[in-house]
Amino acid sequence: MRILHHFPLSPGGRKLRLFLSEKNLSFGENIVKPWALPDDLAALGPGFMPPLLVESDGAILAGDQAIVEYIEEVHTTSSLLGSDALSRAEVRRVVGWFDRDFRHDVIETLLTEKLFRRLAGLGEPASTAVRAGHAALAQYLSAMATLVERSGWLAGEELSLADLTAGAYLSAIDYLGDINWDQEPDVRMWYARVKSRPSFRPLLADRIAGMPPALHYADLDF
Amino acid sequence: MRILHHFPLSPGGRKLRLFLSEKNLSFGENIVKPWALPDDLAALGPGFMPPLLVESDGAILAGDQAIVEYIEEVHTTSSLLGSDALSRAEVRRVVGWFDRDFRHDVIETLLTEKLFRRLAGLGEPASTAVRAGHAALAQYLSAMATLVERSGWLAGEELSLADLTAGAYLSAIDYLGDINWDQEPDVRMWYARVKSRPSFRPLLADRIAGMPPALHYADLDF
Repeated sequence: MRILHHFPLSPGGRKLRLFLSEKNLSFGENIVKPWALPDDLAALGPGFMPPLLVESDGAILAGDQAIVEYIEEVHTTSSLLGSDALSRAEVRRVVGWFDRDFRHDVIETLLTEKLFRRLAGLGEPASTAVRAGHAALAQYLSAMATLVERSGWLAGEELSLADLTAGAYLSAIDYLGDINWDQEPDVRMWYARVKSRPSFRPLLADRIAGMPPALHYADLDF
Repeated sequence: MRILHHFPLSPGGRKLRLFLSEKNLSFGENIVKPWALPDDLAALGPGFMPPLLVESDGAILAGDQAIVEYIEEVHTTSSLLGSDALSRAEVRRVVGWFDRDFRHDVIETLLTEKLFRRLAGLGEPASTAVRAGHAALAQYLSAMATLVERSGWLAGEELSLADLTAGAYLSAIDYLGDINWDQEPDVRMWYARVKSRPSFRPLLADRIAGMPPALHYADLDF
């Protein structure tokens, strides 16, 4: 059976859980702490960080976008990348914008400081990083508003990997309660659409011991 | 004509120059400063940062991996991703490792501090960041040694986008003279192979005004 090794609030793992579910591909889950990898995963070598996908045939896949592209190549039905090369380029552009820039500007400040730092026993969050993260987040929400106003989705005319990726990142931040949903009503409506998909249900059930989510986290009418 | 908008020492732009050249696709170049984008590029919207590729038909592509995937889909001859889905997954895994982790750990410390900070007029490099960058770089060279000892290339049995990506990043750092090539002889041999390809010649001719490269930068026998 296909097994996804991931940590519940890791955005990369969330993206893959949403993606596999939207592709109707079943998978088992193994929860791993990125800051304390089990020996068998650590022995895989450099660059093999969770999320990792082990296919039924034993193939070990790492790197969340590498995994997505592999699955899209092997399971061609109901593509989440788009129907032609130019549409796929736009979906991948938005995905890359989140994977590189949003991760750098928001995840590595807010989520790393407020969640992973604490879970790894490294102490309290650095307030300068958290402030920078909040300021960057407001800019991303504003930028997302210009994208979703075109079709209601982030890239193209329907749900794509861009929406799943952004949903994965934002939902992890939303667990902390750090998103001001009043700032951009169109982005809130977009997130309500993404959040109400069946693929999102397992993510909304995630709970980290000792760190309950924001009250509205699992609320579809937030 | 296809035009690549890029800055000479930007790793993303270097990767695309190598990639297009290895694909035998001609392109014009427009040099842009990422910290002072011309109005027409800035107006493209959030996430449209250089390198940008404008195709002959006017299509505007952004995000270096999104551009690579688009070109691979449209120009299917001499693929640089690999011949089957599993090979491509390994190439994309290594590419993603550099695009995310190496960029974070080494580029944003060494290259951002020592080059972009100075060029953008933001002052001297932060010595703590530079020290962290050097320490991380040594670890990456060691990790790369375990990859290249298998076949002489970073992923699979022949040159791939993984080698071009790593070559793009390392060459930018090498311009600064910050790589200790004595540390890993196998990685030096790998770089000598990459560096001697015709696609690399234009990169070795790059010069930043007021910041000459390390003496061995363009030397094929370094």
